[in-house]
Amino acid sequence: MGRSSRREAIEALNAGYARAIDDDRIEAWPEFFHEQCLYKITTADNYRRGLELGLVYADSKGMLKDRVAALREANVYERQRYRHLVGLPSILGEENGESRVESPFLVARIMRDGTMDLFATGRYLDRIAADGTGALKYRERIVVCDSARFDTLLALPL
Amino acid sequence: MGRSSRREAIEALNAGYARAIDDDRIEAWPEFFHEQCLYKITTADNYRRGLELGLVYADSKGMLKDRVAALREANVYERQRYRHLVGLPSILGEENGESRVESPFLVARIMRDGTMDLFATGRYLDRIAADGTGALKYRERIVVCDSARFDTLLALPL
Amino acid sequence: MGRSSRREAIEALNAGYARAIDDDRIEAWPEFFHEQCLYKITTADNYRRGLELGLVYADSKGMLKDRVAALREANVYERQRYRHLVGLPSILGEENGESRVESPFLVARIMRDGTMDLFATGRYLDRIAADGTGALKYRERIVVCDSARFDTLLALPL
Repeated sequence: MGRSSRREAIEALNAGYARAIDDDRIEAWPEFFHEQCLYKITTADNYRRGLELGLVYADSKGMLKDRVAALREANVYERQRYRHLVGLPSILGEENGESRVESPFLVARIMRDGTMDLFATGRYLDRIAADGTGALKYRERIVVCDSARFDTLLALPL
Repeated sequence: MGRSSRREAIEALNAGYARAIDDDRIEAWPEFFHEQCLYKITTADNYRRGLELGLVYADSKGMLKDRVAALREANVYERQRYRHLVGLPSILGEENGESRVESPFLVARIMRDGTMDLFATGRYLDRIAADGTGALKYRERIVVCDSARFDTLLALPL
Repeated sequence: MGRSSRREAIEALNAGYARAIDDDRIEAWPEFFHEQCLYKITTADNYRRGLELGLVYADSKGMLKDRVAALREANVYERQRYRHLVGLPSILGEENGESRVESPFLVARIMRDGTMDLFATGRYLDRIAADGTGALKYRERIVVCDSARFDTLLALPL
């Protein structure tokens, strides 16, 4: 496929991330992160106020794996599916091999009975760097949701 | 515009495909396929079970053209419009000049009276190769819809 | 980040534009345009009929700035937020350093109480060229909305 630009590599990472979740391969989801990482789901209001607390919080790949195990236990995929649409990334900066990237997203939810709704919108605030093998992974992914109203079923990763 | 990467060429193909449908230029839609091709609309459930049957099925460009003629006959565009948002592609493999690509999509429907709804979400599973002129076209496009509940008005290509 | 292609530069422009609006930095919005520019919001029906009239019309950066001032006066962001998802661009032509580009979009609206809806879909018809500093900016952005039914709250830029 020839050499791809940094932007293309970031797009491929974002696409693969969404695809793993939407395909019900959430065991692959932690693999998109570095061992030392930060994953957080928060709201635009809380983010603006600088509140550290998130609706979901993990600061290691191990915590992400624990979360996956809990989701499997709860059989969340039995009841619903997600479809992520991730928009064009804005590359905000690059330093010491780490890219700071912001990408908008929209997630539709498809219930078991076939009904669909607009589940969440927001933006990903990412710190992306290559791991030892040269593969780009997230050091940090802050999921800032536009709406502060959350479905109590929030369970699958965003 | 300079040389574009394979990824860029695939994005341009996907963008042009959606644009032809949404602009009511469906006569151009079969031209995005090779003469020998497979186009199928199916559901995630049926796809997972390996069911070959699709809601819509065509295995040649001629069948696609027949479908366009039927759509024109039915005046489908009089009643509704579509708006496709196609997400970032994941390039899954490349062999003998053929790329296997998966791209998520979301389609909004806009009725004649102006009401809008979320019509369909899912993913395109594509086999893409250049034709004799060097233009990328679909050898295969399997449209896997997330929801099994289909509006009986399903008529325009997805 | 290495040299980026024209397509990448256009994607970055589109991403930055949407991000400024969605982040409530609308003072930055006029800066995406050349001094001499055309910005118009119209409907697919009116566009097809060749009607020049738009729901919103500005033919200079100064007019865009006036609009921003009016929006701030009206405290529009107090009541609602937008989330733009801009799809893959189709580059339709390039002449004398100016690219003609079409990109689909979808805008979700998030109200203060957390409710979300599909607010608008359509396509951007753009003329894009570099300014004196080499930065790509819009000479023209025609926003063609699919639906002719508009919320009277239409206030934020699309």
